Amino acid sequence: MRTLVATTLIGPPFVPQVNPYAGEVGARSARWAAEFGLVTGPDAATRLGRANAADLAGRACPDAEPEQLALLTDLVTWLFAFDDNCDDDGLGADPTRLSPAVARLLDVLDRLGGDAPARAVTTAEPAATALHDLCRRVRRLGHPRLLLRFTRQLRDYLLALLWEAANRQHQRVPAVAEYVQMRRHTGAVYPSFTLTDIAHGALPTAERLADPVLSALDALAADLVCWCNDAFSYDKERRLESTGHNLTNAIARETGKDERSALAETVDRFNSGLATYLRLEAEVLAGDDPEVVRFATARRCWIRGTYDWSMGASRYH
Amino acid sequence: MRTLVATTLIGPPFVPQVNPYAGEVGARSARWAAEFGLVTGPDAATRLGRANAADLAGRACPDAEPEQLALLTDLVTWLFAFDDNCDDDGLGADPTRLSPAVARLLDVLDRLGGDAPARAVTTAEPAATALHDLCRRVRRLGHPRLLLRFTRQLRDYLLALLWEAANRQHQRVPAVAEYVQMRRHTGAVYPSFTLTDIAHGALPTAERLADPVLSALDALAADLVCWCNDAFSYDKERRLESTGHNLTNAIARETGKDERSALAETVDRFNSGLATYLRLEAEVLAGDDPEVVRFATARRCWIRGTYDWSMGASRYH
Repeated sequence: MRTLVATTLIGPPFVPQVNPYAGEVGARSARWAAEFGLVTGPDAATRLGRANAADLAGRACPDAEPEQLALLTDLVTWLFAFDDNCDDDGLGADPTRLSPAVARLLDVLDRLGGDAPARAVTTAEPAATALHDLCRRVRRLGHPRLLLRFTRQLRDYLLALLWEAANRQHQRVPAVAEYVQMRRHTGAVYPSFTLTDIAHGALPTAERLADPVLSALDALAADLVCWCNDAFSYDKERRLESTGHNLTNAIARETGKDERSALAETVDRFNSGLATYLRLEAEVLAGDDPEVVRFATARRCWIRGTYDWSMGASRYH
Repeated sequence: MRTLVATTLIGPPFVPQVNPYAGEVGARSARWAAEFGLVTGPDAATRLGRANAADLAGRACPDAEPEQLALLTDLVTWLFAFDDNCDDDGLGADPTRLSPAVARLLDVLDRLGGDAPARAVTTAEPAATALHDLCRRVRRLGHPRLLLRFTRQLRDYLLALLWEAANRQHQRVPAVAEYVQMRRHTGAVYPSFTLTDIAHGALPTAERLADPVLSALDALAADLVCWCNDAFSYDKERRLESTGHNLTNAIARETGKDERSALAETVDRFNSGLATYLRLEAEVLAGDDPEVVRFATARRCWIRGTYDWSMGASRYH
């Protein structure tokens, strides 16, 4: 049904771009993951390589310097690797085993990338030491507001994974409204946005971030990224689990539609969400605040980048 | 075993104070809760009255003006009422029913107290409309950084409740390290600190908040409040559920100690945590930054206030 998606999902009307350093940074990120032990074997390495985190990050940050692109790429690599590990050994469907792992990662976040060397975190788990490395590097960039935002967004992501695991354990498919709210966090889009903001030099003040319109734009950008991902990954996910965490499953369960119609509704949601996004964006950009322009540009790149990466990605084939 | 706690837990060496408006604000907060429908009947009203949110908030903000004290008191009232509702109808042990409720409250938080009138939020649930009212009032204070901090801390609290509910459902007692990490969030201490900071005029910059020592002080203050609460509430909780979410249960399960020894260890943890706190506080205050002094004062008041309130509270008798 991927063809249905590819032919009906509206391509976001933003120019597709990719960072010229993506290839080089991708190789470097693979080494980073191996060095921290995030990759557990040749199969895992192949899968991670096919996911092509650098292509996704390179589309989100087309103009970033290699260092900043590497930071976002490593985050995306970390997220893919953690996701794969959760899938591989059933961790993602077993809250009893996932909870202690999540708590240890929250301990890492509480340290805010503080001075101790990466290897000295309280646990030797690869996911924890690599996460601390990411936090340390964000700290070194010297934007404490973004460090705080980044760590709290990752905290929400980790806590939301427990919701997902409990649902999987009970084969529970949430209602659409609940799914949409929680998906914003399980997708880890917000912390990815934050590293992208750093690369784009987008550092809006709290006053701007607390503006309900800008905040709504941010949430809708996260939704679009997640729904695009859900639409393209549906084929793969339905092969793996019948009650997968995918907008299409939530729609099918709530409306009683067959899966093809439910998938079409996922696409419709993306398309109408995109139209709303463009209206909101025009409203936000009317203020001519350069910080807000950069903030919106970073989200444009994510929305367009996710679409292009999904069209090309072998992760979902 | 409450006597054990009352005689062995070290009283925090800070001057006990209580806001002179606590009585008046308490009556007002009871009306607020009734108006929003947070109280479902006479029994619930009695229980909420006995909890005495205004006394706790009045100790946390001894010098606050009535409006600011009312805001914190209403938050504490909201938290007590939500907690009671979770207990009363089993919501707190049933992730399947709690998840949609949590998602609706997260929808409210995403609005950041934006303009729409409280009654116009997407749901007519009392907890949701009252929460929106709190966010609106925080927004009106004109400290966007604190509004953002407040809403994300409440998000963590709500997400962490799902962890707690999943454990209750499976009668799972977490290990101590996991419990300590998650308890920081299930206790909703952080959002309470934030409203207290507003009342104390403590508005440290992100640069200070990202300081690992100040952040560690903040986390330890939250831990001390939670552990004090756990120590004093253990008697009540063990009557209600055998595998309650209490540090004492986590210690008993992990160490194999009997409950009296485990409770004594909870007290020991509080006492040694308090000693560490005093050391960290001295380090933090050495910088002579007035913002940090106010930040630390707000936490002192919470630690001492929780102790005094617990010694006197009928909530745990």
